Amino acid sequence: MIKALVFDAYGTLFDVMSVARETEAAFPGRGEVVTQIWRLKQLEYSWLRSLMERYADFRAVTAEALVYALETLGLPREEDVAMRLLEAYDRLDPYPEAADALAALSGYRLAILSNGSPAMLDALVRNGGLAGRFEAVLSVDAKRVYKPAPAAYALVEERLGVRPDEVLFVSSNGFDVGGAKSFGFQVARIDRLGNRAFQTEIGASDPIGPATLYKALRARPERLGHLADVTISSLSELADITQNRRPA
Amino acid sequence: MIKALVFDAYGTLFDVMSVARETEAAFPGRGEVVTQIWRLKQLEYSWLRSLMERYADFRAVTAEALVYALETLGLPREEDVAMRLLEAYDRLDPYPEAADALAALSGYRLAILSNGSPAMLDALVRNGGLAGRFEAVLSVDAKRVYKPAPAAYALVEERLGVRPDEVLFVSSNGFDVGGAKSFGFQVARIDRLGNRAFQTEIGASDPIGPATLYKALRARPERLGHLADVTISSLSELADITQNRRPA
Repeated sequence: MIKALVFDAYGTLFDVMSVARETEAAFPGRGEVVTQIWRLKQLEYSWLRSLMERYADFRAVTAEALVYALETLGLPREEDVAMRLLEAYDRLDPYPEAADALAALSGYRLAILSNGSPAMLDALVRNGGLAGRFEAVLSVDAKRVYKPAPAAYALVEERLGVRPDEVLFVSSNGFDVGGAKSFGFQVARIDRLGNRAFQTEIGASDPIGPATLYKALRARPERLGHLADVTISSLSELADITQNRRPA
Repeated sequence: MIKALVFDAYGTLFDVMSVARETEAAFPGRGEVVTQIWRLKQLEYSWLRSLMERYADFRAVTAEALVYALETLGLPREEDVAMRLLEAYDRLDPYPEAADALAALSGYRLAILSNGSPAMLDALVRNGGLAGRFEAVLSVDAKRVYKPAPAAYALVEERLGVRPDEVLFVSSNGFDVGGAKSFGFQVARIDRLGNRAFQTEIGASDPIGPATLYKALRARPERLGHLADVTISSLSELADITQNRRPA
């Protein structure tokens, strides 16, 4: 029985790689590698600050991760360029199927639970044309700790009043799948990166190119002892897998 | 005033990249990339399991990270090969200067504080010829949480009876430097990866090759709000920077 579908935002509803247009414009030829290192460090910093008990909001973490990415690649970090790139995180593209897939799920309570700060999420949902689709847009900022900490997932029951086992949590991020399942949600994993293709791409002895760096570290289900209940390839499949599991 | 020097083990006293001999023998041409993805995931899993409150010891985390690395590269995972690679973590090479550098610090109380399980650390120190150099070999296993959680660093005062500000903590791992400094230790960072060289290596538009993947994500000081007090290039410099800071 599913009463609510709760969505991760970054990488699940919105394409974090769509900032590559901006990074490529700022650093021609390096856009992809900047984007990928930026995203990898953004996640690492959210985990590390949580563990250190030194929470900073996702805007700050995202800015610090960008500085790391530019420094490690030896790229200049000019204030106005960094500002423009950070603002791109407020205008990520929703995945093409997102609006229709959400419309098809209108029989359920729908919410977002994201690492993003309230201001980032507000801009993201509004700019992406998804305002009004969700009963609640929940930010872990209320708990000052990032996913996959249990306290972050506990926000769903606290705010929506639904038990974890009545929630289908939807994420493309392996750590989030593991954390959500460990917490007690039903979990659908979206395999957006397509690991099968990745293995072919890299071949037998090729280097990990800018296009595959992120995949090398994030495309496979994480080995954290908690796997998704179901794996799908896009949001469009949710209507099928939830039918007959709706509350009467 | 420094009363004790406390060392991280993996990457600081012992070269985690020395497992590349074994990974290369098992997977010719892919040894380096296996080694680097393995290490990256090992750290990620230690952080994620800590955040999820699903501690598993470092042997288990290391095994799970190896499975991820082999899967993502499309390499076979045979039980006996995996076992042999895991055992290589018990026989990592100490850095060449380690024994002499520790001998030169004999006026101080010396200890290890590591993510490694007690059994791994015991084998590591013994096989590396460093048994007897340390007053204590502390494993975060006693706290069932990994660095950079404050509870892990608190073991030092609990076991050695020295206040955090009387400790010089030594690590080459950026997250560990940030965590130790945030906790209240004095911190020396060992820059083993040499970021300047890295920037030259990758050039203007090269892919991140197997030799540079780890560096791309770990060579720079982490942007976590807490930087080392001093950065050195090897353990040999510790004798110099600690002189005149010894207890009378």
